[in-house]
Amino acid sequence: MNEIDPIEQGQPAQPWSVERVGVVGMGLIGGSIALDLSQQGLVVQGLTHREVTAQRARSRGLAQNVSTDPSCLQDCDLVVLAQPLKSLLAPEQNLLQALPLQAVVTDVGSVKVEVLKVWRNLHPRFVASHPMAGTAGAGVNAGVTGLFRGRPWVTTPDSETDPSALEVIRQLAGRLGSHWLTADAARHDQAVALISHLPVIVSAALLRAVGEERDPAVLDLARALASSGFADTSRVGAGNPALGSAMASHNTQAVLRALASYRWSLEQLEEAILEGHWAQLEEELERTNRIRPEFLSN
Amino acid sequence: MNEIDPIEQGQPAQPWSVERVGVVGMGLIGGSIALDLSQQGLVVQGLTHREVTAQRARSRGLAQNVSTDPSCLQDCDLVVLAQPLKSLLAPEQNLLQALPLQAVVTDVGSVKVEVLKVWRNLHPRFVASHPMAGTAGAGVNAGVTGLFRGRPWVTTPDSETDPSALEVIRQLAGRLGSHWLTADAARHDQAVALISHLPVIVSAALLRAVGEERDPAVLDLARALASSGFADTSRVGAGNPALGSAMASHNTQAVLRALASYRWSLEQLEEAILEGHWAQLEEELERTNRIRPEFLSN
Repeated sequence: MNEIDPIEQGQPAQPWSVERVGVVGMGLIGGSIALDLSQQGLVVQGLTHREVTAQRARSRGLAQNVSTDPSCLQDCDLVVLAQPLKSLLAPEQNLLQALPLQAVVTDVGSVKVEVLKVWRNLHPRFVASHPMAGTAGAGVNAGVTGLFRGRPWVTTPDSETDPSALEVIRQLAGRLGSHWLTADAARHDQAVALISHLPVIVSAALLRAVGEERDPAVLDLARALASSGFADTSRVGAGNPALGSAMASHNTQAVLRALASYRWSLEQLEEAILEGHWAQLEEELERTNRIRPEFLSN
Repeated sequence: MNEIDPIEQGQPAQPWSVERVGVVGMGLIGGSIALDLSQQGLVVQGLTHREVTAQRARSRGLAQNVSTDPSCLQDCDLVVLAQPLKSLLAPEQNLLQALPLQAVVTDVGSVKVEVLKVWRNLHPRFVASHPMAGTAGAGVNAGVTGLFRGRPWVTTPDSETDPSALEVIRQLAGRLGSHWLTADAARHDQAVALISHLPVIVSAALLRAVGEERDPAVLDLARALASSGFADTSRVGAGNPALGSAMASHNTQAVLRALASYRWSLEQLEEAILEGHWAQLEEELERTNRIRPEFLSN
């Protein structure tokens, strides 16, 4: 962790130079950022694609101003791109032209290699961010205050990242109550493939397998007997389909690598069962029992 | 469901003929059954293997009498075998000799084909049961009141099952507040393989795969970023290792069948990712999103 951390220890805190923040996209993440910053007295300028979303964002009080015209970003010191991954990776020309050159620009995408590949050359003060927070909600009605409190905020700076821009994002994360981390973009993408994208596929495959049961009496019985264990294991496999597909499509290599490792692990367990090596299976389950708590400290 | 249901609709409720219940094993299930029945005024006779467990069961008030001598079961009208699967499937001779011939005998094992294979010929009034309830606890300190309330109680009678014995178990399930079901034993084992045993293996393989990560920076980052999605998907894979191994060893064919179906489902999803068929992947995730609620009615 903190492999690349240009913020030196003991350096005096720099003053927060941001007065006007643009937030592009008023969904769960954008809306929540806008809410928190508005409450802190910053001027927040929201930008949405459709007027109906802008109206809803205004009536929810997500930001002081919400517009559908990208030129509304012209006086912003900081712009947070909180769009879906697909839009973030194929930005519209009029958005690019509206981003002030001196502003710090960051995103909130859950993958970082592809985002950096696109944005590294699009804006000189771009910083790649992944605030890890969420609820079951989505869209303009989903934003809530305090969403980022105590949650990790990962940035993946590279050698071309402007250190003063990175410092602004570190302060932004601090203002939202997040736990600041920096990491290499490729390692970030591998880590989220393992703990976030792989579970979606693993869990979806469980639902798919159960749904493939061809004996209706077994299927009825399975429906009647499924309890909390099945509910928990299948939860993320029944999440937002577009999001699941986007994660896989924009983090393909890391997801395939994680899946290869998963398939190997599954085969080891299956082989122990096939061969009747019960002591070995029990040892494997003792090992997984020891591994899990390491991932629950958040 | 209710494929084999000798209890005719509209038949007048038979009087509860049981006064004295023996419970073999004072763990989570046995202790909870004993507690509920004791509170209902029945005479409950507990049997444990070790004197220290008997003492603890007595001091917890799980049953009026707790002994380590199987002959304590001699006057029981009903005996519930609440031992671990391993002991249930290889019953000790002195326990068998102590079971009164006229008593109704049932078990609480999570697999039913192997149990019936062993017990069908050991006692003329044996009824195979699987009360589906649990907590994270185990052992003599785990038993609680009301554990079975609203939970399924599956019996798997076959053509040799004594209908009057089955009726006693139906009444027992009713007294414990359970939702009564009957099913074919093989179908029961396939259903629990799908919704209970398969999730353990699927979830354990996820933990095992993440634990295999060889880049320490990725592993540290994965630990820092894992959140509720990973926690939920990995929960049952980190459960009681001996129980997980016992489920697989006593339900091997059904678990292998479920695993084959799972592997196939996983391959379909992996292939969509490998080929970049994102619309197909999204359709698959829409399908799993629709399947899950069918399994959450409990």
